[in-house]
Amino acid sequence: MNYRTVFHNLGNILMIESLFMLLPLLTAAVYREKTGFSFAVTAAFTFAAGMLLVRLNANPDRLRAREGFVIVGLSWILISLAGAFPFYLSGEIPSFTNALFESVSGFTTTGVTVVSNVEKLSRCILIWRSLSHWLGGMGILVFMLAVLPLRAGNTIHLLRAESSGPSVSKIMPRMQSSASVLYLIYISLTLIEAVLLKLGGMSVFDSLLYAMSTAGTGGFSTHTEGVAVYGSSYIYAVITVFMVLFGLNFNVYFLLLMRKPKEVFRKTEVRIYFLLFFLAAATIALSVYHIYGSAEESIIYSAFMTAAFMTSTGFSVTDYTIWPLYPKIMLLLLAIVGSCAGSTCGSLKISRIVILAKTAFANLRRLSSPRSVKSIKMDGKNISKETISDVHAFVTIYMMVLIVSAVLLSLDSDSLSTAISAAIAALSNVGIGFGSVGTTGDVSFFSPFSKYVLCFNMLAGRLEIFPVLLLLMPATWKKY
Amino acid sequence: MNYRTVFHNLGNILMIESLFMLLPLLTAAVYREKTGFSFAVTAAFTFAAGMLLVRLNANPDRLRAREGFVIVGLSWILISLAGAFPFYLSGEIPSFTNALFESVSGFTTTGVTVVSNVEKLSRCILIWRSLSHWLGGMGILVFMLAVLPLRAGNTIHLLRAESSGPSVSKIMPRMQSSASVLYLIYISLTLIEAVLLKLGGMSVFDSLLYAMSTAGTGGFSTHTEGVAVYGSSYIYAVITVFMVLFGLNFNVYFLLLMRKPKEVFRKTEVRIYFLLFFLAAATIALSVYHIYGSAEESIIYSAFMTAAFMTSTGFSVTDYTIWPLYPKIMLLLLAIVGSCAGSTCGSLKISRIVILAKTAFANLRRLSSPRSVKSIKMDGKNISKETISDVHAFVTIYMMVLIVSAVLLSLDSDSLSTAISAAIAALSNVGIGFGSVGTTGDVSFFSPFSKYVLCFNMLAGRLEIFPVLLLLMPATWKKY
Repeated sequence: MNYRTVFHNLGNILMIESLFMLLPLLTAAVYREKTGFSFAVTAAFTFAAGMLLVRLNANPDRLRAREGFVIVGLSWILISLAGAFPFYLSGEIPSFTNALFESVSGFTTTGVTVVSNVEKLSRCILIWRSLSHWLGGMGILVFMLAVLPLRAGNTIHLLRAESSGPSVSKIMPRMQSSASVLYLIYISLTLIEAVLLKLGGMSVFDSLLYAMSTAGTGGFSTHTEGVAVYGSSYIYAVITVFMVLFGLNFNVYFLLLMRKPKEVFRKTEVRIYFLLFFLAAATIALSVYHIYGSAEESIIYSAFMTAAFMTSTGFSVTDYTIWPLYPKIMLLLLAIVGSCAGSTCGSLKISRIVILAKTAFANLRRLSSPRSVKSIKMDGKNISKETISDVHAFVTIYMMVLIVSAVLLSLDSDSLSTAISAAIAALSNVGIGFGSVGTTGDVSFFSPFSKYVLCFNMLAGRLEIFPVLLLLMPATWKKY
Repeated sequence: MNYRTVFHNLGNILMIESLFMLLPLLTAAVYREKTGFSFAVTAAFTFAAGMLLVRLNANPDRLRAREGFVIVGLSWILISLAGAFPFYLSGEIPSFTNALFESVSGFTTTGVTVVSNVEKLSRCILIWRSLSHWLGGMGILVFMLAVLPLRAGNTIHLLRAESSGPSVSKIMPRMQSSASVLYLIYISLTLIEAVLLKLGGMSVFDSLLYAMSTAGTGGFSTHTEGVAVYGSSYIYAVITVFMVLFGLNFNVYFLLLMRKPKEVFRKTEVRIYFLLFFLAAATIALSVYHIYGSAEESIIYSAFMTAAFMTSTGFSVTDYTIWPLYPKIMLLLLAIVGSCAGSTCGSLKISRIVILAKTAFANLRRLSSPRSVKSIKMDGKNISKETISDVHAFVTIYMMVLIVSAVLLSLDSDSLSTAISAAIAALSNVGIGFGSVGTTGDVSFFSPFSKYVLCFNMLAGRLEIFPVLLLLMPATWKKY
């Protein structure tokens, strides 16, 4: 472990975070909210701490895989810790455990909450919640662009248009140019959504906040009731479309910018993503038709909730907890499957499921024709054995975390639905669930212990588990 | 596909089945039950059909892997089909779908039932239900001994004491001697249990039937209420111990016969099996203590139910559906994990879970020290890449079948607990569940479609999925 490199980078990240705290500070100034002082204090201390870390650890080394993963793991923890102080100092979330929980839920783009009455929060706090989603979403894109490629053989991220295995020396320049394009896409999509929501009758403030929450596939709302408060099919449709857009592999937008639209729909993952979305939305619409009695409502609600669970955004637009069993199971499954790799969504990701299935069936075919050892391909390219083994390891550990956390939460839950859906809501970064978790994702009823279990799940889910587990392994901390 | 070999073997299997129908026929004669005629008719036709198949396909070839798997898959279907006729012809299960379901549940050693009032069944029918469990359990041991080794590289079955990769030519003689020892162990354990149950006050008839159901890890009872009807701690304890014994890898008994008791507890799987059993039983006892208010009852009930779910036997001794959430989740998880490979139990098996976990963590370690490519070992032996890949394929397809079947059953269920636990009860061959499935495993409320889904799950679970899926692949049926 090269501690200098780690601390230097963490310092930079804290300084960047403190700059973003100026936005809620500005909001507080505009709306004359006294709670704004909490951002001034936190920003000052965070900036000072960041500066100190950078100065004391000058001349960092080039990033290597191990340092990269450790920086990612620690940065999400540090950012969440710093981000908790405004909630706590403002007095709007009086317990520090709860404030930390809300901050972790924000930066991991999960959207479960400990705030039962969102309307009581001041505007600067509301904007900080949605901003944390937006920053978390952007952070994940950087992580996939900058850190994952450091590990050779990993081809799951697929963020770049050309996915030739990058050699470490080439990453930095290439990454910086890709990163700017990526930020531009992310910011543009957010702004377009905000404008479209404004046109639908939202206030400027709300439209910006909802757009930021959608972009990070987060789920924090400005109302306890969530998006449902608007009662406008237009707004529901806009948010549905943008949830689906942010669930796409960002590679797709690179391809579109490079004017290769045909290649987009040749990608297995993209095709399965849309197929799965339409199939789930259509069958769910059929099974809830008897509740609403109107084709339009059934379709809009089912498409919205399908997108909300599948992209791990977790907005809610109707009380889906009264839906029949089939849509409930489907929504939970979609939450585990997730959307495309290279998006801001959580969960297993479709490409991993495809690789799992292809490997399993290749193995089955070997039984009837033992001599047919065929390689496994996706989009015409061979998938390396390392990637397959990574995918299996990831899915195994993901399932283990899911099961262990569901068992731990069962000690503190009133029903199977509550325990399982809370574990999934956190680990898949969906943020809503069934049972007591419900449409608002309000988990304030859990004990502090359960809240820390959920925090672990949110971080593990957001960072694809390995960086978080690496932090727990002694071998990680050995000096070179 | 060598059809002559397949048909020849299937014919033999049908003839053997028809001989076992003489036992219920004898029972009917003793108790002067008219329903006995159904066994006479079925036995005669089954024997004739078997004889015909053998005669028309004389001089079969040596078994090869593909034929072995196809024979196993088809034989369970044919045996269940023939075994359904006594239920149907006797009029005790008037619908043929239901009769077939009961027969599949019997031969797959599952124990879910369509009979809501077991006391109404005649004795010859009762003995046929338990006998089908016993034959199914024995059949699985033969399958693991004779067919699985045909596939090179598969070391999961681990039935033989020395697990050197067997060459095909050596299997037949070795198998036949191992098989006789195996049958002897199986029959002896069954008889010992029957004697112990008789000493506890059961009738000879009941003690034999319960012993056969335990041996096959099945779960059919002679009472609707199940074992609970006896209200005797002694009987509960005997059945618990024997459920655990039949969940052990039969390799253990070989080792004991070879006077190597120390080696038994050196085996990873055996150690984890007992550890898991005691840990689960102890924590469940703690969490249900407040219901019974007595340490003895809590311990006996929790040990019994832990063994019943873990070994996929599925007897029930108390209404565990009113237990708190933690034991419920644990029991469902134990049903999926299962017991040792090389036992009569269903489910994933502990050794597979160990291999999954070891592979995943080896992969994780590679992240922090990329150059440490270590092989994965169990009991001091390297696990081949083929085995690891088989295990991953198996678990992936197992989970897929579980998920798809739970979704299909959700269309026809009243709660998440019913749909999920019915899918698990069938696929893991447990036979009891939660929600409407309940302590009796009575699934008569399901539609015929759902019953066929459950039949598929039972067969797939019992035969470790691949033989059943192979039957559905066109490549399997090509002539050489």
